[in-house]
Amino acid sequence: MRETLRVVVLGTGRMGAGIVALLLEKPGLELAGVFARRRERGGMDVGEAVGLERRLGMAVTNDLARLCREARPHVAIQATCSRLVDAADEIRSLLDHGANVVSIAEEMAFPRHRSPEIAAELDARALARGVSVLGTGINPGFVLDTLVVALSGVCQRVDAVLARRVNDLSPYGPTVLASQGVGLSAQEFRRAVADGVVTGHHGFPESMQMIAHALGWRLDRIEQRREPILSSVERELEGVRVAPGFAAGCAHTAVAYVGERAVIELVHPQQVLPQLEGVKTGDFIEISGRPPLRMSIRPEIPGGVATAALAVNVLPEVVNAAPGLRVMTELPAAAALMGDVREHLGRVRGGQAGG
Amino acid sequence: MRETLRVVVLGTGRMGAGIVALLLEKPGLELAGVFARRRERGGMDVGEAVGLERRLGMAVTNDLARLCREARPHVAIQATCSRLVDAADEIRSLLDHGANVVSIAEEMAFPRHRSPEIAAELDARALARGVSVLGTGINPGFVLDTLVVALSGVCQRVDAVLARRVNDLSPYGPTVLASQGVGLSAQEFRRAVADGVVTGHHGFPESMQMIAHALGWRLDRIEQRREPILSSVERELEGVRVAPGFAAGCAHTAVAYVGERAVIELVHPQQVLPQLEGVKTGDFIEISGRPPLRMSIRPEIPGGVATAALAVNVLPEVVNAAPGLRVMTELPAAAALMGDVREHLGRVRGGQAGG
Repeated sequence: MRETLRVVVLGTGRMGAGIVALLLEKPGLELAGVFARRRERGGMDVGEAVGLERRLGMAVTNDLARLCREARPHVAIQATCSRLVDAADEIRSLLDHGANVVSIAEEMAFPRHRSPEIAAELDARALARGVSVLGTGINPGFVLDTLVVALSGVCQRVDAVLARRVNDLSPYGPTVLASQGVGLSAQEFRRAVADGVVTGHHGFPESMQMIAHALGWRLDRIEQRREPILSSVERELEGVRVAPGFAAGCAHTAVAYVGERAVIELVHPQQVLPQLEGVKTGDFIEISGRPPLRMSIRPEIPGGVATAALAVNVLPEVVNAAPGLRVMTELPAAAALMGDVREHLGRVRGGQAGG
Repeated sequence: MRETLRVVVLGTGRMGAGIVALLLEKPGLELAGVFARRRERGGMDVGEAVGLERRLGMAVTNDLARLCREARPHVAIQATCSRLVDAADEIRSLLDHGANVVSIAEEMAFPRHRSPEIAAELDARALARGVSVLGTGINPGFVLDTLVVALSGVCQRVDAVLARRVNDLSPYGPTVLASQGVGLSAQEFRRAVADGVVTGHHGFPESMQMIAHALGWRLDRIEQRREPILSSVERELEGVRVAPGFAAGCAHTAVAYVGERAVIELVHPQQVLPQLEGVKTGDFIEISGRPPLRMSIRPEIPGGVATAALAVNVLPEVVNAAPGLRVMTELPAAAALMGDVREHLGRVRGGQAGG
């Protein structure tokens, strides 16, 4: 049987840790190394750094170029950041070393939206080495875009798309809660939105461009709104208290237009303890068209577990893909990998030394 | 701009007619000819044959080889039959003439199940001409297989899949109703199942093999059961009367095993007037795993409209695909085609003359 697929992981935070743990479960995949930006993680045993119950006998490194030269990864999974400008340097290095790349940086889901220049440059670098690079994740990357596109295939005509992800912020830490304005008054919330402190969801434009690109729409403009979800009850969580009248989270919505026609509306209200006001969480897709279609997933797909799953499940598709910058909707669906991953591989690109 | 994609359609029944009508709506696609098996359709104007309100100035033909030589289709859509043995001759001819093929024959969704020999032969013929061949449709082809696989991508582990399609047979004609045992007593129903007169759903093994193939399971056996849905109320439809105690349709289920472990259960109860007993129609997918996932689409995706949509929406994917016999789960999701189809095409294969 062919050799195992050598995978390196960038990032030892919550997402990187989940990805490392999952890789270790999958026959045919080999964890070939782990990179961390944080200097204090350098030299730590990977098992310790990502919170496994055992040591792996492999040290976390802060030297990405050296890791690439020594481990010669077929593919790397990047879980270090959200923004394209912040992700691009590591991706450049990985591609130049001949590794395929999967990134969970939100803006990598459709990088042409934030920067056509960086996207074109990554595409060229990937082509030059015969490898591919893909952004994925639950959102953007799946529930408000790839799944919408997959469902649209049963439609003879799509007039409009409405997709909603209603989730529970309670499991998240203080940084995430602050970015959603949890605990602020309505006035404080609006000021924090204006100041860029309350950011809401990261990735609506990427999801919208993914849908438009797949269906063949040209979007003329995207409008976004961030409103406080004002609680009518007391909501108390470890470390956070939301009094009645204050924000339990952020109702972030975006509408995309073709001319003056609204064709895509995405809605993502995120709040702590939604059940206290009877809010049922879930993922919902409604397509107006021929035929119309109403899908629901209840409760919502859990973001952390699912993003790690997608980042790993998509590995065969990325390794098999035509070289260059790819988008989730351009690849076959990532299936849960339940057998030996090697059976899903065609001609494996990547894994060259040097660069 | 590049030339339009020339498409021929095989079949002028309900499905063929729906496909022809849809093709005519899509910029970038050109209806290049229509073939019918029925001799009496030969020479009829296509518009008349498929029930359009206008003539198209194009005659239906009974001569497929001549149609291929003269129309030089890039791709053909076959809507003439359900069974692989019945579909194979037309597909052979199309491939040998250098056309890509989309078939809605149920057994073409995963032809290796019914006949590895025919599947291998079709694969070789497609490869020889550098074109591809794909089976699609709502079921098998999408709701109980491709959609299951797409959803599985968010799972780190899948233990079992339960997918149900609960639909309403009321729009269908007497042939379909007879195949589901509508109006029979329980005893008559069981005899008709044994005699092969009541067949239930066509395509469970294909759907199961599609899921297993994508996830990496090897199925050891598949068990199917066809039970009468005995009505407790009077159900009356044009031409059909179901008295209380008689069959309103067929509850067809299938279970697939890996060793002794049931990994896939597919359930498809089909009956007339389900609402008379409060049955809500819909498509339902439940994945047991990490995370578990429960999806519903209510009401169910309508089969006829959706199969025509898939057959047309998948055209760019089939034309762009690597040559050979393809399965839906190996291709990027078919998106609703809302722009000019030519913008979705890479290097177009097929459309050669001769053969």
